[in-house]
Amino acid sequence: MATTPLFLPDVFLPVPSHRALAGRVEAAMHGSVERAAAVGAPPRLREALSYAVFPGGGRLRPQLCLVAALACGDADPDSADGAAAAVELLHCASLVHDDMPCFDDADARRGKPAVHKAFGEATALLVGDALIVQAFAEVGRTPRAGALVSTLAEAAGATRGIIAGQAWESEPAVALDAYHRAKTASLFEAAAAMGAIAAGADPEPWRAFGDAVGRVYQSADDIADATADPRALGKPVGKDAELGRPSIVRTRGLDGARAKVEAQLRAAHDAIPSGPGELLVRSWIERFAARAGL
Amino acid sequence: MATTPLFLPDVFLPVPSHRALAGRVEAAMHGSVERAAAVGAPPRLREALSYAVFPGGGRLRPQLCLVAALACGDADPDSADGAAAAVELLHCASLVHDDMPCFDDADARRGKPAVHKAFGEATALLVGDALIVQAFAEVGRTPRAGALVSTLAEAAGATRGIIAGQAWESEPAVALDAYHRAKTASLFEAAAAMGAIAAGADPEPWRAFGDAVGRVYQSADDIADATADPRALGKPVGKDAELGRPSIVRTRGLDGARAKVEAQLRAAHDAIPSGPGELLVRSWIERFAARAGL
Repeated sequence: MATTPLFLPDVFLPVPSHRALAGRVEAAMHGSVERAAAVGAPPRLREALSYAVFPGGGRLRPQLCLVAALACGDADPDSADGAAAAVELLHCASLVHDDMPCFDDADARRGKPAVHKAFGEATALLVGDALIVQAFAEVGRTPRAGALVSTLAEAAGATRGIIAGQAWESEPAVALDAYHRAKTASLFEAAAAMGAIAAGADPEPWRAFGDAVGRVYQSADDIADATADPRALGKPVGKDAELGRPSIVRTRGLDGARAKVEAQLRAAHDAIPSGPGELLVRSWIERFAARAGL
Repeated sequence: MATTPLFLPDVFLPVPSHRALAGRVEAAMHGSVERAAAVGAPPRLREALSYAVFPGGGRLRPQLCLVAALACGDADPDSADGAAAAVELLHCASLVHDDMPCFDDADARRGKPAVHKAFGEATALLVGDALIVQAFAEVGRTPRAGALVSTLAEAAGATRGIIAGQAWESEPAVALDAYHRAKTASLFEAAAAMGAIAAGADPEPWRAFGDAVGRVYQSADDIADATADPRALGKPVGKDAELGRPSIVRTRGLDGARAKVEAQLRAAHDAIPSGPGELLVRSWIERFAARAGL
């Protein structure tokens, strides 16, 4: 892919342009959606799967996965692409199911009607299921299938993954930290760890970094839900308050939330694993923070 | 496990008693549900997961998986147990989502209220998702993760797996054979293939056998939907006709369906892979046919 060397290339790995990184993510997503519903699949489901994945949102999770893989040397780009696609497919699945009437009952997503509004609830239910299955298929075909599947399953799962995060919303009480950890940080953590695993590197320092990035993201998202223009965000706002959801803004107030997210961003910078990929990672997180208005 | 040698044990592998086989399946299911929602998981989700899996129905798919593994020598019982649990978790997930109001809107399953009736739709949606995730986690932790994950994903998927089968129900027209293949035979095929893979054997002859068993099962199920007492079946009957679903009874009439299922059963017997496990497999399929009233 096209790269822009910003620093001594024999000390630091080259930093890919945002355009190159984003392009690689989209190529991986297109491949995975093609495989999810190949020729011969029920046509309506096939169309709905594509609708649920394209055009994407920020694609932060697959970017984080590829950034980690690149920083670790990207020894197996196909596995890294599979891991990145898997993480984003799982995220898309959670959005489709989360928007359904029995959950958030959100009519719009990414500036267009939610999947259940465009295709009906039965198809939306199946789209979410199919995206989960394809996420595992994407990592199942890699040489490091075992470690990647296990990492993804934990991040998705009912104990401390996304599904647990959604389920905590139906419980009478939940700690904000456990809720945010399960609902958001778990998949960011897995994204970074899976990038490292795909490249044959030790995932542990990347787990800590991914978790830190996920916490920044969730706080910024809570602030956006309380303050943003729904047209700019492409989805309804004020949902946390309306649904009585835990939110850092409800817990700390807007100023407290803003102070917290700044501290979380510093912690994420401090958690960047040292090595020749450091500059590449720093460049990515700075763009991420700018996009989140931090 | 306890076995009852029925024939020359140096020529044919011992045939496990039904009780031993069923006990091994239940032990595998209990382990997998414990792992799906461990201590610390949202309590309501944890309870609903267990409710969705226990008590089971016939557990035919995991039995088929273990029978294939045993017939292939069962060199890695832990992997075989993981594969068997994975297949049944996926089946349970499809039942939970299929019973929801946006699909079949079925109030009862296995003689008790459906998951969405007992726990609400939001929890039922998450239970299905969590069961899919755990299915992949169960095979992700085995030494043959790659082949098992890929086989399971294809059987679940949107091109020709269970999800495709459910999606065909929303299409204006579908061929009965493609529909039955996707909705039912795909997972039976995967169950047998995964048992062989877990034991380190060639899955191909087992695919053909599993597919043949799945076709018998689907025809018998269509006949039961048209003729059975709902109390004996533990779920509503007449759903195929009510929902305009393709059914072998609608296509061929009751006598034609009965003739077809007899031919399918003979084909399944003919597809039993030859080898020292042949008697064991034959014994299982005879019990299966008797249970289905064939």
